[in-house]
Amino acid sequence: MMGNVLVVHGGGPTAVINASLYGVIEEAKACGVEKVYAAMGGSEGILKEDFLDLLQFSKERLKLLLTTPATAIGSSRYALEQEDYDAMPRIFAKYDIKYVLLNGGNGTMDTCGKIYAACKASGVTVVGIPKTIDNDIAITDHTPGFGSAARYIAATTAEVGVDVKSLPIHVCVIEAMGRNAGWITAASALARRNPGDAPHLIYLPERVFSEDEFLEDVKRLYEEKGGVVVVASEGLKGADGEPIVPPIFKQGRATYYGDVSAHLANLIIRRLGIKARSEKPGICGRASIAWQSPVDQDEAVLAGREALRAAMDGVGGVMIGFIRDETEDGSYRIHTERIPIEKVMMYERTVPENYINQRGNDVTQEFVDWCRPLIGPELREFIDFHDERKKLETNKFITSKGEDAI
Amino acid sequence: MMGNVLVVHGGGPTAVINASLYGVIEEAKACGVEKVYAAMGGSEGILKEDFLDLLQFSKERLKLLLTTPATAIGSSRYALEQEDYDAMPRIFAKYDIKYVLLNGGNGTMDTCGKIYAACKASGVTVVGIPKTIDNDIAITDHTPGFGSAARYIAATTAEVGVDVKSLPIHVCVIEAMGRNAGWITAASALARRNPGDAPHLIYLPERVFSEDEFLEDVKRLYEEKGGVVVVASEGLKGADGEPIVPPIFKQGRATYYGDVSAHLANLIIRRLGIKARSEKPGICGRASIAWQSPVDQDEAVLAGREALRAAMDGVGGVMIGFIRDETEDGSYRIHTERIPIEKVMMYERTVPENYINQRGNDVTQEFVDWCRPLIGPELREFIDFHDERKKLETNKFITSKGEDAI
Repeated sequence: MMGNVLVVHGGGPTAVINASLYGVIEEAKACGVEKVYAAMGGSEGILKEDFLDLLQFSKERLKLLLTTPATAIGSSRYALEQEDYDAMPRIFAKYDIKYVLLNGGNGTMDTCGKIYAACKASGVTVVGIPKTIDNDIAITDHTPGFGSAARYIAATTAEVGVDVKSLPIHVCVIEAMGRNAGWITAASALARRNPGDAPHLIYLPERVFSEDEFLEDVKRLYEEKGGVVVVASEGLKGADGEPIVPPIFKQGRATYYGDVSAHLANLIIRRLGIKARSEKPGICGRASIAWQSPVDQDEAVLAGREALRAAMDGVGGVMIGFIRDETEDGSYRIHTERIPIEKVMMYERTVPENYINQRGNDVTQEFVDWCRPLIGPELREFIDFHDERKKLETNKFITSKGEDAI
Repeated sequence: MMGNVLVVHGGGPTAVINASLYGVIEEAKACGVEKVYAAMGGSEGILKEDFLDLLQFSKERLKLLLTTPATAIGSSRYALEQEDYDAMPRIFAKYDIKYVLLNGGNGTMDTCGKIYAACKASGVTVVGIPKTIDNDIAITDHTPGFGSAARYIAATTAEVGVDVKSLPIHVCVIEAMGRNAGWITAASALARRNPGDAPHLIYLPERVFSEDEFLEDVKRLYEEKGGVVVVASEGLKGADGEPIVPPIFKQGRATYYGDVSAHLANLIIRRLGIKARSEKPGICGRASIAWQSPVDQDEAVLAGREALRAAMDGVGGVMIGFIRDETEDGSYRIHTERIPIEKVMMYERTVPENYINQRGNDVTQEFVDWCRPLIGPELREFIDFHDERKKLETNKFITSKGEDAI
């Protein structure tokens, strides 16, 4: 008897957690596992012994996992106590669970490490599957979930960009998720096809936000273009380390802030007298299947499969990570590695300095080159007759010069 | 010589204005028109004589119009003066323009009527093509642009719905565009596949918003579900006819308000002590090609073709409208009609009472039936194992009862 598998999801959803779950299930089937239990509703599901065997569902139903956002088995932000960890070996033994896979971000990897420690003696193998749109997990080149969030923000910024360009009467500030790490915000740069394309300004939480420089940049671009697109992280902070949005109210120990995008739009109206508006797609971004990156989907499935394999190999206390290969032709390729969980527990990886430009209002080409393969196929091409006309004129100019030369 | 065509775009973009432009171009080609001029940058382009002949571009480039959001020839909110109208006959004569097509919403149809009046004597035929995501133009069953905005909000609400359901810890308020007409807000109801699906509450600007009833509804649903999705119009007003969001600042004659979604989320936190967040996709919605409705795209092309045909027939002063046919099998079919422009000029069509439920927190089945065909193919199916388990249990229950009976 090889024992059963248990999968647990933790924290906020992405567009591809379910794809990793699909990978786990497929690999478990291939290995002859009898039951793949899901802990329904996250880690609380373990304590409540609320388990559902996913192998009882048809191949057809399971395939929907690849294109279902959120988490099909639920999730939670429940913080486990020591007594919860202590209770687990007994629960796992009761259901003959020998392999436990935890899918989540930094917090979940911490939980993963603790369950590993609590269950080591009882022969249960515990493995982590990385997942976060924020891309802030250490060591792995990137995390499943990020590529799709990146594709969403890039595609959406490109669409908003042509909208604003075609009726150039305002500045449009788009707010991107990622409170401490600006990876998603940075990925909006992938919207650009041609010089001058949106986004025109990008502000990451890794840099101190300067209101004066921001207004200076917006004013200059507005005078040049009429329509300006700004992408700003929800977590922008000033020199004092405090959010740039003043707190709107306090309740108990929590302080509530307004939205960065609305705050910046108001600032533009008030200080520059320029029309401005804000868009905050928020959860719409992390739940978008239309903009799911096929590369991200594939890699999420792979992470699920590899986690199951590591567990079967008896290698616990690790998280599956992606290592980018150096290839001869520079093409994109990764392999997975089993990363000791203590190396990733509770560490938050932010965007490094070499990915941000000097003024702190854009990313570097180095970032774009790193990010490009993760978002999948090239974005749709749009037509704009202002540009087409310019191309015609350039061609005519070249032709007539050529003819003159003859 | 049959004379040339001029196309002018007015007001805010949709996902399918360019599809109408494509229809105009294709029909003009079929009719042997020599030049199809675009007024670059909207009605100001007429006065500046900034015309670009679109027939000089390849079929391949022009086809991109079908899937390019915004307006590929630009647009404006420029208000024409009487002297501007007076100048037009001379400009049109100079370029041998005999047919003028204006694509826009209520305001543009007003302009269309005025250009028609100014040019009637000079033998120029002026025809309107309806366009607005807001769906607030009179007489026509619906407007090109609405179906795609409706598909976007429905699909997005469905995705946010599964996200919130899978980590049910908060109320999520999505803001929909349409300040005075709640058509887009209402279309979020199309997100539902099964009873209990998001959106759980829908608030249209046609009804006076009651804060107390809202909080009562949210509280009840939160206690029942844990995760609640609300869709609210950006234009919600109280009993006094004023926006429900208190003004945040004034500048000159303009008053600036915060976002309805953020306001409602804060209200939920403050008054109910329940975690809440807001999403405001805004322009991301009207510019989305991923969620463009194929029905809307086809109809937009049709509207463009029919406008060109009306112009060729010498029938000016009309707007192309859609009339829904009664069919024997109840299937969806429309035909176009040429609607006298004075019947649609500056009239704003809002959502009728029979499309809103009594409490004013949802739409009726009548609305859903009316709206369903406009958004195109059925939305993607998602899988949720909480639901799958319920189905299994129901099946087992039925089976065992059946066996008992035997």
